[in-house]
Amino acid sequence: MAAQKSAQPAPSSARRSERSRRAIYDAALALVAEVGYPRTTIEGIAARAGVGKQTIYRWWPSKAEVLMEAFLDLGEQAAQEAGQESYVIPDTGDLAADLKGVLRATVDQLKDPRFAAPSRALAAEGLVNEELGREYVAKLMEPSLQLYVDRLRAAQEAGEVRPDVDPRIALELFVSPLAQRWLQYTGPISYEYTDTLVDYALHGLAPRTR
Amino acid sequence: MAAQKSAQPAPSSARRSERSRRAIYDAALALVAEVGYPRTTIEGIAARAGVGKQTIYRWWPSKAEVLMEAFLDLGEQAAQEAGQESYVIPDTGDLAADLKGVLRATVDQLKDPRFAAPSRALAAEGLVNEELGREYVAKLMEPSLQLYVDRLRAAQEAGEVRPDVDPRIALELFVSPLAQRWLQYTGPISYEYTDTLVDYALHGLAPRTR
Repeated sequence: MAAQKSAQPAPSSARRSERSRRAIYDAALALVAEVGYPRTTIEGIAARAGVGKQTIYRWWPSKAEVLMEAFLDLGEQAAQEAGQESYVIPDTGDLAADLKGVLRATVDQLKDPRFAAPSRALAAEGLVNEELGREYVAKLMEPSLQLYVDRLRAAQEAGEVRPDVDPRIALELFVSPLAQRWLQYTGPISYEYTDTLVDYALHGLAPRTR
Repeated sequence: MAAQKSAQPAPSSARRSERSRRAIYDAALALVAEVGYPRTTIEGIAARAGVGKQTIYRWWPSKAEVLMEAFLDLGEQAAQEAGQESYVIPDTGDLAADLKGVLRATVDQLKDPRFAAPSRALAAEGLVNEELGREYVAKLMEPSLQLYVDRLRAAQEAGEVRPDVDPRIALELFVSPLAQRWLQYTGPISYEYTDTLVDYALHGLAPRTR
C-alpha cells in the first residue's frame, strides 16, 4: 500500500495547478492552429481545457498573454526533449558547423506540426495586428535571435567573423531566408538549403580572389 | 465645339471598361487593406467600385484573381511612375550598386501605404491559406525574384559572383531579411540597412584574409 501510494500520490494543489496550466497551454495552441487568432477566445480555451474561464483570467490578463506563454513553454519542452535546459547555440570553435547544426534543428522544428501550425497562425495575425506582431517578436523571436548575436560576437573575438560586422544584421542572412521560405511557401526547406545559406553568408557571393 | 468635343471625347466602350477595371482594382486593394482578405467579397468590391457584381464575375472567376491582377496593375503603375515599362534591375557592370539601387526602391515601396497595406493583408492570409499563399508567390513574388536571378547570372558571367553559387538561393540573403523586417516588424528598414545586407552578402561575414 505504501509503495502504491508513493507511485500514485494524491494530487497536491501545486500539481493540480500545473496540470491545469498545461491543459490551458495545449488548448490555446490547438485552438489558434484550428480557428486562427481572431476566433480564439478565453471561453473557448477554458472549455477545451476543462477549466473555468476565471482560472485563466486569474493567471493571464488576455488571450495574447496565454498564447505567448504557451509558445514559450512549447519551446522549453522541445529543448528538454533535446536534452537541454533551454535552447543554446554551441560554441565548438567552428562557427559554420555550429550554425548549420542549430539551423538543421530549426528545420526539424518547422516541420513539426505541434509547433508549426500554431506558430503560423500567430505569425499571420502579427502581420496585420501590429501590437500583437511586436509582442510576438519581442517575447518569442528576439530572445532566440540574441543567441545568434552572442555566438557571432564570440566568433568575432575568435577572428572567424570580421570585426566591423553588426551581428544583429548578419544573423538575418541565414535566419530570414529560412523563415520566409517556411512562412510564405517561397521554396522548400531542407538541411542542404540551410547549410548552403551558412556557407554563402560566411564566405560571400563574390569570388575570394578578387 | 469641335475643339471642345476633342478635349472631352465621348467615352467609348473600351474607355468605359478601362475605367471600370481601374475602379474595381482600387476598390479591391482598399477593401482588403481595411477588412482583410476573408471579409473582402466580390459584392463589397462591386459596391465600392460602383459596378454590378456581374461585371466583376464576367472578367474574373474569384476575388483571389481580382486581387492578384490588382497587385500586378499596381506594380505596373509604380514602374510607369518611375519612368520604366516594367520593373527591371539595371546592369551597369557594378553588381553591388545595382542591387543597392533596386533594394532602395523596394524600401520606398514598402513604406508607401498604397502598396504596403493591401500587400500585408494578402501576405497575412497567404500564411494560413496555403493555396492563396502559393498563388501569391507564383504570380506576384517569383516573377520579381527572377529579375534578381537574371542579374546574378549576368554577374556570374562577368566574374562578380562565384560560378558555384545558386542565384535563386543567393538572392534570399538580401531579399528575405528586408521582407521579414517589413512583414514581421523585426527591425527598422532603411537604405543603410539594405546597403549593409548587400555588402555582407557579396563579401561574406568571414574575414577575406583567412
